[in-house]
Amino acid sequence: MGECSWNREVERWDVWEIACEGRTDGNPFVDWDIWGTFSSKSERKAVRGFYDGDGVYRVRFMPSFDEVYEFEVRGTFSDDAVRGSFSVRPPSPGNHGPVRVANRHHFAYEDGTTHFSFGTTCYAWAMQPDGRIEETLRTLEGAPFNKLRFCVFPKHYDYNLSEPATYPYEGTPVDSSGLTSENFSQYTGRTEGNRWDFTRFNPAHFRRLEACVLRLRDLGIEADLIGMHPYDRWGFSRMTPAQDDLYWRYLVARFAAFRNVWWSLANEYDLMPQKSIADWERFARILCEEDPYGHLRSIHNCLPFYDHTRSWITHASIQRQDLYRTTEYVDEWRVRYGKPVVCDEIAYEGDIQHGWGNISPEELTRRFWEAVLRGGYAGHGETYLHESGVLWWSHGGALRGESPARIAFLRKAVEELPGGLRPWPGSFDETCAVLEGPQALAGGAQPLYLYYYGFGRPSFRDFFIDEATAYRAEILDTWNMTATDAGVHRGRFRLKLPGRPYMAVRLRAVEAGKDE
Amino acid sequence: MGECSWNREVERWDVWEIACEGRTDGNPFVDWDIWGTFSSKSERKAVRGFYDGDGVYRVRFMPSFDEVYEFEVRGTFSDDAVRGSFSVRPPSPGNHGPVRVANRHHFAYEDGTTHFSFGTTCYAWAMQPDGRIEETLRTLEGAPFNKLRFCVFPKHYDYNLSEPATYPYEGTPVDSSGLTSENFSQYTGRTEGNRWDFTRFNPAHFRRLEACVLRLRDLGIEADLIGMHPYDRWGFSRMTPAQDDLYWRYLVARFAAFRNVWWSLANEYDLMPQKSIADWERFARILCEEDPYGHLRSIHNCLPFYDHTRSWITHASIQRQDLYRTTEYVDEWRVRYGKPVVCDEIAYEGDIQHGWGNISPEELTRRFWEAVLRGGYAGHGETYLHESGVLWWSHGGALRGESPARIAFLRKAVEELPGGLRPWPGSFDETCAVLEGPQALAGGAQPLYLYYYGFGRPSFRDFFIDEATAYRAEILDTWNMTATDAGVHRGRFRLKLPGRPYMAVRLRAVEAGKDE
Repeated sequence: MGECSWNREVERWDVWEIACEGRTDGNPFVDWDIWGTFSSKSERKAVRGFYDGDGVYRVRFMPSFDEVYEFEVRGTFSDDAVRGSFSVRPPSPGNHGPVRVANRHHFAYEDGTTHFSFGTTCYAWAMQPDGRIEETLRTLEGAPFNKLRFCVFPKHYDYNLSEPATYPYEGTPVDSSGLTSENFSQYTGRTEGNRWDFTRFNPAHFRRLEACVLRLRDLGIEADLIGMHPYDRWGFSRMTPAQDDLYWRYLVARFAAFRNVWWSLANEYDLMPQKSIADWERFARILCEEDPYGHLRSIHNCLPFYDHTRSWITHASIQRQDLYRTTEYVDEWRVRYGKPVVCDEIAYEGDIQHGWGNISPEELTRRFWEAVLRGGYAGHGETYLHESGVLWWSHGGALRGESPARIAFLRKAVEELPGGLRPWPGSFDETCAVLEGPQALAGGAQPLYLYYYGFGRPSFRDFFIDEATAYRAEILDTWNMTATDAGVHRGRFRLKLPGRPYMAVRLRAVEAGKDE
Repeated sequence: MGECSWNREVERWDVWEIACEGRTDGNPFVDWDIWGTFSSKSERKAVRGFYDGDGVYRVRFMPSFDEVYEFEVRGTFSDDAVRGSFSVRPPSPGNHGPVRVANRHHFAYEDGTTHFSFGTTCYAWAMQPDGRIEETLRTLEGAPFNKLRFCVFPKHYDYNLSEPATYPYEGTPVDSSGLTSENFSQYTGRTEGNRWDFTRFNPAHFRRLEACVLRLRDLGIEADLIGMHPYDRWGFSRMTPAQDDLYWRYLVARFAAFRNVWWSLANEYDLMPQKSIADWERFARILCEEDPYGHLRSIHNCLPFYDHTRSWITHASIQRQDLYRTTEYVDEWRVRYGKPVVCDEIAYEGDIQHGWGNISPEELTRRFWEAVLRGGYAGHGETYLHESGVLWWSHGGALRGESPARIAFLRKAVEELPGGLRPWPGSFDETCAVLEGPQALAGGAQPLYLYYYGFGRPSFRDFFIDEATAYRAEILDTWNMTATDAGVHRGRFRLKLPGRPYMAVRLRAVEAGKDE
C-alpha cells in the first residue's frame, strides 16, 4: 500500500474518504480490489473502494453516528493494511441524512424529518458544458424540486444529438457527424463504429457526476441516479453481463457514500430487450449487497410496470401508461404495491411534437395535486421548443414553464403536514372521490382535510365531518396560488366557491369548543 | 264499434291514425283492447291501439312504403270491425325515416342517410310550463343537437322540486310543500302520501309528450324517451310488475308510430334495486313484441353497465364510470359490444356542486372529439346555476354554455363523411393513439384522416400515410372553430401547429398525381 491520505473529521452522513496510491500495471479497474472496514460504538460496515485513475485508489464511507470510527483499508495490490480513526460531528443544519421509507407509503430523512418528494427530470444535465450545469444549478436553487432524475450514461435521442462532455469508458465514439433529427433512430442501440474498453472506466466522467451529486446535495436535492437506459448510440446499453456487473459495482463504490443518492436501475427498462428480468434482478442483488447504506432503489417503465412488489424495490417509480388517467391511479397503486408511489413521468409541460412532452402547466399541476391527495408523489419535466435547442427535460438550463411556481405552492401547502397525506374516502353524503375528485387527510390529534376539484368548477360545496369539531376553512386557488380564509364552521356547512377549475378546500380542526 | 275517423292519406314514416268511439264503462285502459292490421303490397303489420280518454280509442300506424294500405280495426268492446284504406305519398324533404343501426357501429336513417348522433339531455322539459317548452324548442332550433333524452315520468331531484305540468296517472300527489333542496332525498322513492290509480293513465300527460315528440321531429331531432328512472317521489318507480307491463304496452301503443322515437328503458337502471334484471328483460321483450317498427332500444347506467351484448339492445347507451377517462374508452367499448356506442352522459358543462355537472366547455368539447374519432358518439348537457332555477339539463329553456357552438363545428366537420368514422391505429412511426390521442379514418376511395391532439399542444407533427397519394392538409382549431389550409403534401411531411390545445389535423386524399 502506497501513501494514503484521509479525512480526520467529517459530519454525520457526509462522505469520509481515503485516497491511497497503488499499482498501475495491468488494468487496475479489474485486476485489483480495495476495501475498507469501519467500526464505531454503534455500527460496523465493510465497503468496496474503487480505482480513480492516475495510480489513486479510493474508499468512501458515510458514517451514521456522531462517534469515533476506527478503519482498516486493504488492497489486493499490497500485503499492508492502513489503519486509523476519525471522528464524526453532528450534522449541520439542512443535513437530515439519507431518505428512507418511513411509514409504508411515505418518506422521511434518517433524522425523522418527513420528505415530501417533488422531483424533476434533466436526463443528461451532468454531461452538458460547464456553463449550462451552472445555469441548471442556479435554476434549481429557485425551483421547488427536491429530487432530480438523471443518467449516468449519455443520452442519444431526438433533441439529444450532440456528444456528451465526457464518456464513461476509455475509447472513441461512433462518428455522429451525419446524425440528424430525422435519422437518429437508425443509430439507436447500435454498437458499430464505437471503440470502447468496457473494462476501463473514465474517472473524469464519474468525477463530473459526483460533483453534480454534491452540488445537488448542497441544494437539498436528492440525486435519482439512472443506471441504465435504452437511448444509446455508443453501446453502453449492450454490454455483456460481466461488463454490466463491473459497472454496477463501480457505480456503488463511487456513489453509495453520498447521502442524497437514490438508485434507479433503469429508465424504461422494458425498452431494453437485451436485458432480461434475470439481469435486472442480478443488478438489484449487486446494489443490495454492495451498498452498505440501503439507499432507495427503484426501476422505471415505459409501458409494462416492473413487478414493484419485489422486495428490493423500495418505492414504485412509475411512468404513466395512459394518455389521460395518470396520477389518478395513485391510490390504487398504493394498495397494490404497499410502498410509496412516485409517478416520475406523467408527461411534461411543453410544446414538442410528442404527446409525452406537450401538456399544459395547468394539466401538469393538476396531476401533481391528484398524486399528492391520493397519498403519492409526482415528477415534473419541461419540454418547450427553444431556438437554443436546450430543453430542461434533458439538458437542464432555464425553466420557462408556469407549473414550477404552482408546484411550489402545493409543496408549501403539504410540507407542513407531518407524516404525509393519506387518501380519505369521506362519506357519500358530502362527496365521493370516485365522482368528485380526490380528498386527503393529514395529521392526527388536530386533523386536516384537503379536497381537490381538479378540472371541476363547483360554485359551492357542502361539507360534514362531525358535529363537535370546529374547522377553519380555507379556499385554495391552486393555479392562482392564493389561500382565502372562509371562516370557522361546525357540523354541516356550505362553502361558496368561484366556479373556476383547480380549486381546493382545506379544513383544519381548531380546538373543539373554541372558535380559534 | 262506434263512430271512427281516420287519415285518408299520409306520407311515408308519418303517423296514420284512426280514432273510434267505444265503451267507457269499467276501466277502458284495462278492460278493453283495440288493434289494427295493415297490409300493402310490401308489408303486413298488426299493431295495438290505446284508450285516449273521453270514450275515444285510437290506433296509430307508421307506413314504410309509398303504397296503398288496407286496414282492419277491431276492439274487444264490439263485434264489428272497421275496414278501409289510405294511400301513402313519398316522404317530404327532411323526412328520412326512423334511425337504424347501419353498419355495426354507426347509424343511418331508413332512407340510407347517415345519422351522426349529437344528443343533448333535458330530462323534464316536457313537463315544464308551456312557455318554457316553447323556449326550449326555439333554443333547439339554433342548436347542433339531433337527439334529445327526456323522461316520460316527472323528475324529483335537487333543482327539480316543483310539480310537473301533468301526471301520468289519475290521482293526487304527495304534499310537497315542505320539500327543500336539503331534505329532498328523504322523499325519494317513497310512495306514502301519494294516491294514484296505476291502472288509469292520464291521457293529457301523454298527449303533452306526443306534442313534444312531434315538435322535435319537425326540427329533425330524435326523441330518446326514457321509460323509467329512480328520481321519483310519486311512486312511479315502485309499481307492481303488472302495472309496469301495462305502462310499457301503453307507451308503445301511443308512441311507436312516431318515426323519431328511440326507447331508453331506463336512466340509471342500477339505481332502481326494486327492479331486477328479469324485470328489465321482460320490459325489453314487451318492446320487441309490441313495437312493430323496431325502434332503437337501449338502457343507461349509473355505475355498472347493463350487459350491452343482449340481443335486444341496439346500441350501448353509456354513462361514464370514471371521473377522468370517459369517451377515451369508446374504441374499446365498440369492440366489446359490437354495436354503436353512444356516451349519453359524460358530465355536463356547468358550475353546480356535483362533479357530473361542473366541467368546462373545453373539456366537454374535448370529450365529444374523443368519442367521434374513436368511432362513437357523445351526449351534451348543461348545468349552470341560474337565478331562475332553470337548468338546461332538466328543464330546457336557454343554453348559456360555450360547448354547443363547438359541437356544431365538430358535427359539420364529420357530417360530410358518409358511413361514420372508424378509429385508425396508424403506424407507430408517425403517431400512436395510445400515446398521442385518437385518429380516425373515413370514406373509401378518397379516404380522409383526422388526428386530434386534445389537451396536447404540439408545435408540429410529422405525417406519413403512403408515398403515392397527395393529401390536402387542414389544421382545425376545434375550440376557435377555424379550419386553416396547410397545403398539399405527399410521402413524409411535417405540419406546423400553433402549440395550443384542442387542435386537429385533417388530411383529405386528392386524386393521385394531381395537386388538386
